Amino acid sequence: MADKPIAIIAGAGSLPHLVAKNCRDKGQAVVVAILPGVEASWCRDFVSFSIEFERLGVLFDTFKGHHCYDVVFAGAITRPRFHPEKFDKKTLALAPKLLASLGQGDDQTLRVIGEIFTDEGFTIRGAHEIAPDLLATSGRLGRHAPCKEDMADIERATEIAQALGAVDTGQAVVVAAGLCLGIETLQGTDAMLRFVADTDPALRGKSNIAKGVLVKIPKPGQELRMDMPAIGPDTIINAAKAGLAGVAVMAKSSLLLDRKKTVALADEKGLFLFGMQADPPIDTPTDTATTKG
Amino acid sequence: MADKPIAIIAGAGSLPHLVAKNCRDKGQAVVVAILPGVEASWCRDFVSFSIEFERLGVLFDTFKGHHCYDVVFAGAITRPRFHPEKFDKKTLALAPKLLASLGQGDDQTLRVIGEIFTDEGFTIRGAHEIAPDLLATSGRLGRHAPCKEDMADIERATEIAQALGAVDTGQAVVVAAGLCLGIETLQGTDAMLRFVADTDPALRGKSNIAKGVLVKIPKPGQELRMDMPAIGPDTIINAAKAGLAGVAVMAKSSLLLDRKKTVALADEKGLFLFGMQADPPIDTPTDTATTKG
Repeated sequence: MADKPIAIIAGAGSLPHLVAKNCRDKGQAVVVAILPGVEASWCRDFVSFSIEFERLGVLFDTFKGHHCYDVVFAGAITRPRFHPEKFDKKTLALAPKLLASLGQGDDQTLRVIGEIFTDEGFTIRGAHEIAPDLLATSGRLGRHAPCKEDMADIERATEIAQALGAVDTGQAVVVAAGLCLGIETLQGTDAMLRFVADTDPALRGKSNIAKGVLVKIPKPGQELRMDMPAIGPDTIINAAKAGLAGVAVMAKSSLLLDRKKTVALADEKGLFLFGMQADPPIDTPTDTATTKG
Repeated sequence: MADKPIAIIAGAGSLPHLVAKNCRDKGQAVVVAILPGVEASWCRDFVSFSIEFERLGVLFDTFKGHHCYDVVFAGAITRPRFHPEKFDKKTLALAPKLLASLGQGDDQTLRVIGEIFTDEGFTIRGAHEIAPDLLATSGRLGRHAPCKEDMADIERATEIAQALGAVDTGQAVVVAAGLCLGIETLQGTDAMLRFVADTDPALRGKSNIAKGVLVKIPKPGQELRMDMPAIGPDTIINAAKAGLAGVAVMAKSSLLLDRKKTVALADEKGLFLFGMQADPPIDTPTDTATTKG
């Protein structure tokens, strides 16, 4: 890791703040670039500035001016609406490549953005490289454990999520007593959990032994360095409202935002929190990045 | 087709009524068996009776007493909650087979139910065999046609639906400008369209050329004779509320409930209605059923 400041490109949610705090705790300087539309009052505690998608030249120059060459993408990024009349010279040059990637799914868009940064001399770092404590571990993560019926639901939900991942869609699936009640789309995991919560109870049945599980796993080939599946306190709150028995993630390739609070909430609400072992095991990307500079 | 009455096992929705009317128009007698929980005030115009899942013996005997040997399953069936203490002798004998199938997905459950009826000497007929006018034809079905961008969304939605079908989940998918906004789960197509309608407009973007499409296709190997994907006036109303450009179904393996009204609504609301050609073409099951005497 560099002695130079680390650049954090901050999207929505708590992850960028968690990464920035983690850096400060280790005495590591950061420069935080706030994406348009992101509420980030916390950023005033750090060296930070707002960025526009249309002025990539300004972004690159600012990072370089602060001797930042390691870049972390952290937090949810909403697909931007571009205003081409505001493009600076750098963005104009990159526009054909960037715009072409937008219609090709999230993975491809992120991959192209990563390439653009790499071509500029930056190295993309995963949030979990900067803050390894965020990475989910395997097995039971809180007080409660999944029962046999929950494990069967986890297996079924994983099978559906994998089928979806193959067509670059969704990361999260809800299954209860073998029946699929929710599949994540663009609206995200929390919106999907609210949809499940609104389901007619008559349709769900009244199983007390298989109340349902949320499984959230990466897509095959997902750009884990820039976009790792994440759960946090909100996930637990919404899973509880949806009447689920618990939440399962893939160990080593999922982020547990605010682990302490997330686990405490799961314990309190009676939900299990479970880290699955990938089969075959996933190599968490840590040291395979092209190092430049 | 038999001169004897046709047995209609009536689930929810307009399909059983449409099938019964179609029979009457042709001078074909029917006996309608109403599933528990189904609102079917229309059934008073036909020879009809209510059935309980727990008394299959009564069901079989009643059909046989009316010399009904051709059975049509029509309308949505909610997964039943059984009361084993009410089982008659016949149901008790069939319970192991039936209950085992319930955990194995809709297709397998329907297949087992079909087998049970066949073993009893009945022949399962598709609603489209009794009322061929219900079958969707190919190409543009109303006044409006999908544009190039809509066709790209149809292709993407079909790809996602096929990936899901492979794991026996969902039949309907919404895609707008390449982005997946909705995937059908147990709650059904209309619930999914309401979820899409509730999507934050900022997330959807403001594309006027690719407003989004609903694609509804059968799962690979779906039991089309007992459960064919269907759309009707409600589908069009909910698709319009969700801001979509149109609806695409698979020709020859989808039912168009109340075709006249469905097409008129699509025309009025500016939505296209499109019948895709299956590739490879689907053989609509019509005359392949085992005929028993």
